[in-house]
Amino acid sequence: MAAVVNGGDLGGVKALAFDVFGTVVDWRSGVAREAGAIAARHGVDGDWLAFADTWRALYQPAMEQVRSGGRGYVKLDVLHRENLDRILGDFGLAGLPEAELDHLNRAWHRLLAWRDCIPGMLRLRSRYILATLSNGNIALMVNLARHAGLPWDAILGAEVAQAYKPQPEAYLRSAAALDLPPEACMLVAAHNEDLAAARACGLRTGFVARPDEYGPGVKKDAGASEAWDIVADSMIDLADALGC
Amino acid sequence: MAAVVNGGDLGGVKALAFDVFGTVVDWRSGVAREAGAIAARHGVDGDWLAFADTWRALYQPAMEQVRSGGRGYVKLDVLHRENLDRILGDFGLAGLPEAELDHLNRAWHRLLAWRDCIPGMLRLRSRYILATLSNGNIALMVNLARHAGLPWDAILGAEVAQAYKPQPEAYLRSAAALDLPPEACMLVAAHNEDLAAARACGLRTGFVARPDEYGPGVKKDAGASEAWDIVADSMIDLADALGC
Repeated sequence: MAAVVNGGDLGGVKALAFDVFGTVVDWRSGVAREAGAIAARHGVDGDWLAFADTWRALYQPAMEQVRSGGRGYVKLDVLHRENLDRILGDFGLAGLPEAELDHLNRAWHRLLAWRDCIPGMLRLRSRYILATLSNGNIALMVNLARHAGLPWDAILGAEVAQAYKPQPEAYLRSAAALDLPPEACMLVAAHNEDLAAARACGLRTGFVARPDEYGPGVKKDAGASEAWDIVADSMIDLADALGC
Repeated sequence: MAAVVNGGDLGGVKALAFDVFGTVVDWRSGVAREAGAIAARHGVDGDWLAFADTWRALYQPAMEQVRSGGRGYVKLDVLHRENLDRILGDFGLAGLPEAELDHLNRAWHRLLAWRDCIPGMLRLRSRYILATLSNGNIALMVNLARHAGLPWDAILGAEVAQAYKPQPEAYLRSAAALDLPPEACMLVAAHNEDLAAARACGLRTGFVARPDEYGPGVKKDAGASEAWDIVADSMIDLADALGC
């Protein structure tokens, strides 16, 4: 399906800032794969897709503590580990050695991209600065990029901004780091809430549908909830829409 | 000439953090080339290598205002512009339109790498995380990387650290952003003062000689002043020494 372009003149866009978990990389199957491999080494059986879903479900509440001001900025790796520690017992993993738990926590560093991402992003990069605008911390994003082969020009987002999306500072400080006004940046994301917050800050918006992010048949964010500047099915579709 | 390795076991090094101006890119010839081209459009003659040297001579004093606490952190692009404004008149450029002056100020975004850099860095990147640890701001580093084809995994340094080298925070916060202890990072630089500050923070040190940085016959930083962990002639030499 060809992308829908609602945004009028997008000629002023200089940078594409990407949400990463879900939009670029498939966290659910990747975390399940990593957890399953580690668990197998220790003779633990389980439903590792359910494990990934359970772990991910604690993500927004943990960040909300920081966003609400109840806690200073801490890296997502730290929040992931706290959340992991809460669910370990329920999945039979409480007895794993510390080194294995640390390795499991870094499952988020070893995900792979949806298969349209690298070819689409390489085309997009010919014309646009490509940056992360993720809640993942810098080390996580660097390791993930090396693992998955993602062609970023810059790692921006939560740690550089010291604020978690959808706080406005996360978007505005990322644009400022590129020395660009918000309207010269487009957030590319599979999540309507993220795009709404970016739009409220003045960024342009590109929706890329990821209907399988949460598993087959889960309808969250399955379609665009607003007329985003571009509504695309893939990064290749986005590259087509942007003339790359 | 083969690199000299003084550093003993370097097996714990995970990231190479690069000084950029002088070490990776040739600022003197590049600024002269850019200034000459702009000046020619406006019929202004001059010694553009002297212009580059004059502009660069104001670099350390401007940062020193920030380092001393006399001024909060401001991006290097801003300091470059302030310094440019001070010397414009001496080089017959005071009458240029604002858009041209802005373009001239961004000459630092359009430099090229010494010719050993890209081949050497591509080899180094196969084994190490490559990051900038420059006093240049993020936008400057991103634009420069795209212009010169530099394969960075992350843009770190002054803006991320909110501190200018050789302040310890510049080195320590860059290592922390990679979630690495200082000793797992090696500063790669052509400048002894930079390496001394990095070593004092616990980083490993790689000297890459750039005898022509300041022009033929200028001996500043022409050789290693201490037994840095590696003393190399080029990025290719450094890659050889690190077994890449």
